[in-house]
Amino acid sequence: MDRLVEAIAEKGGNPSLVGLDPKPALLPTQLIRQAVEETDRLVEGQSEACAKAGANGRDDIWLDRLAQAYLRFNLAVLDGVADVVPAVKPQIAMYEALGLPGIRAYMATCRAAGERGLFVIGDVKRGDIGSTADAYASHLSGPPLTYRQAVQGLDGHGDAEPPGASGAAVGSPWMEDAITVNPYLGSDGIEPFVRAAGASKKDLFVLVRTSNPSSDQIQELPVVHGPGQGERLYQRIGDLVQDWGSGEIGTSGYSRVGAVAGATHPRAGAELHQRMPHTFFLVPGFGAQGGNAKDVAPMFDAHGCGAIVNSSRGIIAAWRKESGYRPDLSVNATLGVVSTGARRSAVLMKQQLLDVLKEDR
Amino acid sequence: MDRLVEAIAEKGGNPSLVGLDPKPALLPTQLIRQAVEETDRLVEGQSEACAKAGANGRDDIWLDRLAQAYLRFNLAVLDGVADVVPAVKPQIAMYEALGLPGIRAYMATCRAAGERGLFVIGDVKRGDIGSTADAYASHLSGPPLTYRQAVQGLDGHGDAEPPGASGAAVGSPWMEDAITVNPYLGSDGIEPFVRAAGASKKDLFVLVRTSNPSSDQIQELPVVHGPGQGERLYQRIGDLVQDWGSGEIGTSGYSRVGAVAGATHPRAGAELHQRMPHTFFLVPGFGAQGGNAKDVAPMFDAHGCGAIVNSSRGIIAAWRKESGYRPDLSVNATLGVVSTGARRSAVLMKQQLLDVLKEDR
Repeated sequence: MDRLVEAIAEKGGNPSLVGLDPKPALLPTQLIRQAVEETDRLVEGQSEACAKAGANGRDDIWLDRLAQAYLRFNLAVLDGVADVVPAVKPQIAMYEALGLPGIRAYMATCRAAGERGLFVIGDVKRGDIGSTADAYASHLSGPPLTYRQAVQGLDGHGDAEPPGASGAAVGSPWMEDAITVNPYLGSDGIEPFVRAAGASKKDLFVLVRTSNPSSDQIQELPVVHGPGQGERLYQRIGDLVQDWGSGEIGTSGYSRVGAVAGATHPRAGAELHQRMPHTFFLVPGFGAQGGNAKDVAPMFDAHGCGAIVNSSRGIIAAWRKESGYRPDLSVNATLGVVSTGARRSAVLMKQQLLDVLKEDR
Repeated sequence: MDRLVEAIAEKGGNPSLVGLDPKPALLPTQLIRQAVEETDRLVEGQSEACAKAGANGRDDIWLDRLAQAYLRFNLAVLDGVADVVPAVKPQIAMYEALGLPGIRAYMATCRAAGERGLFVIGDVKRGDIGSTADAYASHLSGPPLTYRQAVQGLDGHGDAEPPGASGAAVGSPWMEDAITVNPYLGSDGIEPFVRAAGASKKDLFVLVRTSNPSSDQIQELPVVHGPGQGERLYQRIGDLVQDWGSGEIGTSGYSRVGAVAGATHPRAGAELHQRMPHTFFLVPGFGAQGGNAKDVAPMFDAHGCGAIVNSSRGIIAAWRKESGYRPDLSVNATLGVVSTGARRSAVLMKQQLLDVLKEDR
């Protein structure tokens, strides 16, 4: 987590990140209208032959234009927050919902955030086993076979190198600095990600205690494990996370294996910190999900460090509360308001968090 | 699960499916060489200006050509098995590893399988909460906002319809008939998928007991839950799966919410069937992962129904054992051997499963 810890320090100790989770209902009407108009124009411009070839022509073009609207929206948010926050967390589900053009917009968003010096946490919640987990870990370490490896293999200069070994040199098309991972499959579902993170100098965050109400159903189940009778499942997972990261502790004192722990469970957070002193926390649930700065304070360690708090809607939909927003603004003026709103709410969140952390110490 | 149950009946009661999980090490050298040669040709054909614009030009082209090799390989497998098996299960991780062209190959594979009358289970193991789970559920129900809905919204003919409500009419770009889902986030992580499955007449499979060795670490943990002291976590998840599907039981007697339970745990399977009489099982772990036909027999119900068994490497890498395979075969001849091998091993697997199920009754 050294790079993330550094990025936080560079932003005046601001421990917050912006969730880039666009969906149609969060976009200003102007962007939806622009996407419709672009679709109409492109459909008209298609030759009749083209139009016949793809029965879904208009629907495909629409998804491409909607994805473009997501990207424009994200770029406006990024312009607003890039010098305020250390990191962003695009939620890949929102982009997958649009199919291929959505994934393209996701990658372009990650790239644009990286170019602005932001640490990019891909919220992908992947998880699988063995060679499949290796394949998902390509998000961090790059493709399973590079051109150079393929040519070497064909020339008989030894076998193709093992996955992840030198893939990092080529770089992953996904452009994430860290990803989130689901622990339900146990160690052999996580270790490939840990190896890939080590090889590529990136990080991961394992789900431990999520911020949704029904997470109790499973994560709060009392489990019987060795001497620790009466532990909760998320506590057991927390211990595993601490183990998984034990070989990858950086100069900051935190390992490459972080934990996701929702701000809606402040008590769990405080106690997890004690259990997992080398674990950095990603804390969702601030703002729209109900958590406030006081709620998240226990998610930080005694020095006010060791956690980063995510807000999505609170920042990216802040344009709605801007006095400068009017439904008849041009697209460019609207994007300006998206930037201003995101910036204003990101600055406010920073102030709220720093105030509470100062009080706490 | 009615469509899957029907597809199994149409294939002579064959309860097996083929895992389409390509990776470089499983592809014949000829396909890798072809991808290298295509890359070289395309790089040479690029104008100098193009080449300068994209520093990663060759690496990007390579991933596109490797993805094309995956697709060619899959089509050969599909041609071999399409009239033998009822279903296929592409593992999206393998495709994600190649970035955008990989995802394109995944979608093209799903489409090609559907066109050959096969039921397509997208092994995506997604899972998240609330509006994010809604977005992932777009895999089944289609995009969150269609062109028609956008235009209606702008015209003021009422608000845009809720996600999933009419998206199914447009169709999902993902082309899956069912997907796999991770349960770690509890009910509000699953219910959006159940709603989308109902609306789009598709299905899902929730991870209950995975086939990897370390799944014990978490899934076998004894949990304390109400009266059921000493239950295992996977059993509790099994009960939840049965609940989640209770409103979506089809004419086959099985609900839209199936369960993933590995063939490496036959005892767990038998007992889960008793706990979950309306749940259809997806059983990974046959063949390369160590399970044989006898091991998976307990995963079926008393009538030899209620489950489908997956084999990946055993089928898609069967070309290696074909007497007709030689390293100097042409690409087309190689693809022919891939087809023949896949078909031969799929027929063998069908026979083994049907024999054991016959004995069992």
